[in-house]
Parts: sequence; C-alpha cells; structure tokens
Amino acid sequence: MNAEIIAVGTELLLGQIVNTNAQVLSRQLAELGVNVYFQTVVGDNAARIEEAVRLASSRADFVICTGGIGPTQDDITKDVLARMTGVRLVMHEPTLAAIRRYYEERKQPMPESNARQAALPEGADPLPNDNGMAVGAAWTWNGTRYIVLPGPPREMEPMFAKYAKPWIIRHLDDRRPLHSVMLRFGGIGESALEKEILDLIEQQKEVTIAPYAKEGEVTVRLTVRARNREEGQAMMKGTLEEIRRRVGRYLYAEEDISLEEAVVRLMAGRGLTLSAAESCTGGLFTELITSVPGSSRVLKGGIVAYTPELKHNLLQVPESVLSGPGTVSRECALAMADRMRRLSGSDMAVSITGVAGPDPSEGKPVGLVYIGLSDRNGEDVFECRFNGNRDGVRLRAAKHALYRVWQRIVQPDTERGAGGSR
Amino acid sequence: MNAEIIAVGTELLLGQIVNTNAQVLSRQLAELGVNVYFQTVVGDNAARIEEAVRLASSRADFVICTGGIGPTQDDITKDVLARMTGVRLVMHEPTLAAIRRYYEERKQPMPESNARQAALPEGADPLPNDNGMAVGAAWTWNGTRYIVLPGPPREMEPMFAKYAKPWIIRHLDDRRPLHSVMLRFGGIGESALEKEILDLIEQQKEVTIAPYAKEGEVTVRLTVRARNREEGQAMMKGTLEEIRRRVGRYLYAEEDISLEEAVVRLMAGRGLTLSAAESCTGGLFTELITSVPGSSRVLKGGIVAYTPELKHNLLQVPESVLSGPGTVSRECALAMADRMRRLSGSDMAVSITGVAGPDPSEGKPVGLVYIGLSDRNGEDVFECRFNGNRDGVRLRAAKHALYRVWQRIVQPDTERGAGGSR
Repeated sequence: MNAEIIAVGTELLLGQIVNTNAQVLSRQLAELGVNVYFQTVVGDNAARIEEAVRLASSRADFVICTGGIGPTQDDITKDVLARMTGVRLVMHEPTLAAIRRYYEERKQPMPESNARQAALPEGADPLPNDNGMAVGAAWTWNGTRYIVLPGPPREMEPMFAKYAKPWIIRHLDDRRPLHSVMLRFGGIGESALEKEILDLIEQQKEVTIAPYAKEGEVTVRLTVRARNREEGQAMMKGTLEEIRRRVGRYLYAEEDISLEEAVVRLMAGRGLTLSAAESCTGGLFTELITSVPGSSRVLKGGIVAYTPELKHNLLQVPESVLSGPGTVSRECALAMADRMRRLSGSDMAVSITGVAGPDPSEGKPVGLVYIGLSDRNGEDVFECRFNGNRDGVRLRAAKHALYRVWQRIVQPDTERGAGGSR
Repeated sequence: MNAEIIAVGTELLLGQIVNTNAQVLSRQLAELGVNVYFQTVVGDNAARIEEAVRLASSRADFVICTGGIGPTQDDITKDVLARMTGVRLVMHEPTLAAIRRYYEERKQPMPESNARQAALPEGADPLPNDNGMAVGAAWTWNGTRYIVLPGPPREMEPMFAKYAKPWIIRHLDDRRPLHSVMLRFGGIGESALEKEILDLIEQQKEVTIAPYAKEGEVTVRLTVRARNREEGQAMMKGTLEEIRRRVGRYLYAEEDISLEEAVVRLMAGRGLTLSAAESCTGGLFTELITSVPGSSRVLKGGIVAYTPELKHNLLQVPESVLSGPGTVSRECALAMADRMRRLSGSDMAVSITGVAGPDPSEGKPVGLVYIGLSDRNGEDVFECRFNGNRDGVRLRAAKHALYRVWQRIVQPDTERGAGGSR
C-alpha cells in the first residue's frame, strides 16, 4: 500500500521552517511497510490544498495532511477536506469541552475562533491531541483513507504515534503489527559499521535492517511484521545474535537512547561519578552529559583548559609536557585526566585534547585527538583520527570519549589504548 | 512570478534525510520576490519525476529540481528533463576534464559512470559545481525556466547562490537586483522584538522586513529591489534608522554572524580574553565560543562546576552562600564569576547558574538563571527567566550570557543588573 504526505502551511513555502513532519512520517510509514511516492507542500490556500489533495487521492491509499488545523482563519485543512469528501464539519464535544475548560481555569474568555479546533468531518474518527487543542481526524471516502494531523511537531508526533499509526495499521492489507528493535552504536562510523553487516543488509528478507547516522552516532533498526511480540522476537533472534557477534563491542544499547543517556544511566546505576578536562571540544563533552535530565547524580563538573597556560595553571600539566610532546599528545591527555580526577574527586575522569581545525596546530593535523581516561584502576589513552569540519571533529571526539567511558565500565578488559595503561 | 521546487531522492521519501534544500531555496526565492506555491518530493523513478515536472511546468514560471544528478544509475533527473523538453544530453567538456583530472591526480582510473555528471541538456547554461563534480543546468523550454541543482546541500547552496540565483534574476520581469541587510539581535526574544517593530512590519512597502528566530537568536532581514547598492541603501535608510532607534541596544551585528562569532571578533579586536564558570549550561557557553575558529585568541577556558561541592572546591564559592541563598542565586553567580576571572587571569569572566529543569531545584523554578560578569571595573549580575524545555533554557541562558558580554564591552554604561554592580 502507499501513502502521500501533504504539508499545509505558507511558512513552509516561505522557507521559515523546514518540513520535518514529512521526514518523521515517511520514516514511520516505511517501518509500517507503506510506500511513500510523493511528499507535497502547499500554502494556506483552499484551491491549492484541494488541487494537491485531489491529485494525491488519485494515486494513494492513504492521504496524510499535516498543518492548518489551528484556531485562525488561515487554518482551513479540515474545511477543504470535509467539503471535498462530501461531509460537513461537526463539533467534537470532548475537544470543545477541553478547550472551554482550559480558558475557564485561566479565567479568560475563550476566543470564539478557538472552537474551530474541535471541528471534525462528520463520521470521522477523532485523533486526540494530548499536547494541544486541535483534534485530528481519520476517515475513509471513496476507498481512500484520509488522515489530518496538526502542524507543530510536538503535537503531531505523539498524535501520530498514539492514535494515527494504530488507525493506519487497522486499515493495512497485512494487519500483523510491526515489531522493531533499535540498536545504538558508539565508537564506530556508519560506513565501517555498514561494511561489517553489509551481507546481512543485502540478504534481508523478513527482517528489515536499516542503518542510519545522526549526531555522531549510528543506529540500526531491525523490523519484522509478526502476530505478536514473541513471534517478532523469534524472527529477529538470528539476525540480532549475528550483529551482536560481529559488532557487539560497539553496541551500547538495544533501545533508542543517546550515548550520553546510556552513560548517565550506567554510571548512576552503579553510583559512579564523572568529570572531564577538555581542550578542543571546549565543553561539548560536559554539555552532552548535562543535556540528560538527572545527570547531576553522575557529573561533578569539568575544566575547559583551552590555552596551554590554563592546562598548566588549572590542570598542572607539566611544562615539560607542554614544551615537549605538546598539548596534543598522549602525555598531555594523561596528565589532564589524572589531575581532573584528583581535583574533582570523581570516580572517573575523561580528557580530550586535539586539533579541531580549520588549521593544523603545533604541527599536528586536523582531526588528531587524544582521549584520556583515569579511574582507580589506572589511566588509559586513545589516539584517534576524526574526519569532518571543525564541528564534526568536535562532535565525534566528544561522542568517542563517551563511548570510551561506557566501554571502560562495561568491557573493562576488552581493549586498551596503546599507551598509558598500567 | 512563481516557482516550484521538486526534490528528487528516494532517501527523502524514506525519511532518511530532511528536505532542507526546499527551505533554503524557498527563502532565497522569497527574497527575490518569486512566489513558491508548491514543493514536491519524488523518488528516483523516471515516470514519477516526469509526472511531477509536467505538473509543475503547467503551473510555474520556474521549475527548480534538486538531486539525482550524481554518478549512479539512480541519478536520472537530467535524463528525464532533457527527454521531456525535447533535447539530447551532451557532454560539458570543462566538467568532464575536471572529473578526469581529479582521478588522474589521484592516479586512479575514472569509473565510467562518473562521466554522467558532466552531462548537460543541449543548449542549457551550465551551472558550475565548485564543491563537487556534477554540473548543474538552466534552460528555457516552452516559456518555462528549468533549473537543475545537485542534492547535497554543500554543493547545492553555493551553486545556487553563485550561479543559479543570478540566472533567475536575469529572467525576472523586474530585473532590479535585491539588496538586503541582516540585523542580528541578542538579549531579546522573537515575540518581544516583533512587538517593538510590528507597525513597521505591517506598513512595509518597498522595504521587506522579515523577522525569524533560530538557535536562541533573532534575525531581521531588510530587503529592497533597487538598481544599485547606493539606491538600495538609500531606500532602507529610514527603516534601518527607526529599528536602530527602537531596539538598537539588542542589535549586535548588521551582518549574518552568530552572537558567539560577534563576541569573539569584538574581544579579539580589542585584545581581550574571556573565561566562564558554568553550572546549569554544563559547558555550553564555552562550547559555543570554541565553535568559532580562532576563538583561542579570546577564550582561556572555563570551569563546569555542576555540583555544590565543585562550586566550593574549584571556585571557592563560600559555604555561607551555598547554605544560605544557595547555588541558584545572585551571590553564587557573583562569587563564581569573580573567582573564575582570578583563576584564569582573563580580562572578563562570565558565570551562569540556574535551573534548566525538568524539575525545580532548591525550591527555585525552572528557567530561573543568574548570569554574572566580572572584569576590572567590577562585577554585575542579571536575574533572568527563560521559557522552554531543558535544552531551550540552557541555550537561551548561554546566548544571553554572550549578549551580556557583548553589551558590557560595547555599551558599558547602558544597563546594569539589579545587584552586584560597584
């Protein structure tokens, strides 16, 4: 079966915002086994919305519209679709009551136009909006399924996941639900990972294997269509085990969480604390860690020693290191991690020093980064070469440092940097 | 005149990537005064590309296609468009020579398929690719203008700016070029700024005034169509002066640079150095600063004191502050900034301490942040309330701190926090 996605909103045509809804929906539909052949963006204009919807109706089983269901006179998506499919708009009383209640609680008069958000094509299934006022709708006309969702992603995404997706599944030819597992990898790039499992990807049959890279990490999603969870797990078992066998050392989670989240959970669970001494990443490592709610149980803090002077003054990196091997060296990384751990009293300390670019530094090439680790078992240091521009090198360095923290706790014996271990 | 944008690529329909090209092109076309009524995404499929292009041709003056001009057999955009517009593909010799040269220099054989990237519809104007191999194309057929651009943004954006945009301007009804000025604001939110200049926006005639928010900052773009630069400046003069008069204290640049870039430039130009003591932002402030190439001339470093213990041990925040007003207080912010400046020996130090959420802390509400400043003229502290989720509060806090650094240097006498000034 196939679907088309129509995003309604003049702000998209003006380039004020990017159409992330189309991406999110396309990915979810791909997982449902529904093909998307066209995505369209159209402004808040009745004739052009109708033109786009008519064309999509002539080609697709599912026509999914996002946007244009808010309170203003510009918001006409439901009006246009109701008229096209020959039904009138009626009020969805529970939504209307919720809108009224919202204003009553705030002792404000309800602007009359707000009632528009409770409108529903007669006979349509309401899709509740748990994060906003406008109700969504799903209905069938002339064999085509129509789904209308709100434009703001924070409303659209939960409404799709909780209400629209189950509605679509109920109307699929193959109604066996999809089961998926997210495998998250650190310490390895997308192409290196893909190479390791390319034969599995190419041979995929009932288990869909989809790798993708984002924010310096790689995710592989396994998906099967099965009658129930147990059947799904059984179908995926062989593939999952083979992937674990080949690249398990990089596999930090079998669920959709970031590396920083995994590290915070892991260390919080074991009552371990962390600190960081950063140079080229300039605070990005601690910034990633502290982006996780609850990270204060794990992170004590860090020092950004951006100049050699501060490496010496705040982190006591010896003059002999600074004038000898230099700030981008194993020796400097080890000294930074060791001192950071002592200063903070944390169980583990990380250090990151390298050349983010755009120009080489101290005669060292762009992308060369040393990552140091220190805990009560000793120190370790890893020499890394990262590709990319300044931002890319910094992100990869910080993510790799997170991976090394994870690995040192979970796989203490598997791998060591070439130097500094003791 | 109006344009349609057609993005070609199955990866877009699978949701693997988001269609940022449509946003970038839409914004640029809006500035040229060209209306965009539809954006379409279609996969690497000849019949469906043709269907989308035929429809766009029936409605638009300009049909702009992105993607599908690379070296693989999937890349068929030029083939389809050439066939549709009744011309054959010929080789663009300079492009072909450049591709051959690339492989010769690397002493590798050129894969035969790579020559496809030099193909050009006969009679089309080539659009050189300064950042990749595939040549773009622009031509007219049956009164419609066709433009084909590469998919990767790093190739598409410079090709559009340098070659396609001038081509479009040459084919506009009104060929007077556009002149624009970017006004960048810090320390003020989008809606507050918009309110200050709403009457100007609503009355806009020959000067287009477009505000938009991104990454915790607000930009206002002024655009006019004029015969030359001097005429453009003269036309914008009144509006620009009025905006400066009303909100000049937030206007940190009249060009398109980020706040961190403006701060680095400003301080580097004056030979000033900076350091930062961060709590709730967890390193984000120094991370933003160090994202700017050359920031090592300005930033000495920073301390992330995430726990009260480290605020005491590394930054000597007195026990009486920690147990009295607490870590989220004017007193703590002042002590952090003061100590940071002394430890680093920098000319100025910033401190940021507050509640990023999701939960209140020490009985203080989410979004309450204190920003401290210390330089040789004394200390200052600002109490701020930021909206948004955890990431939003952190970003706004770091950006606001950057604004306060900028303001303290550029407008030393304009504004002071309520406390701590001396």
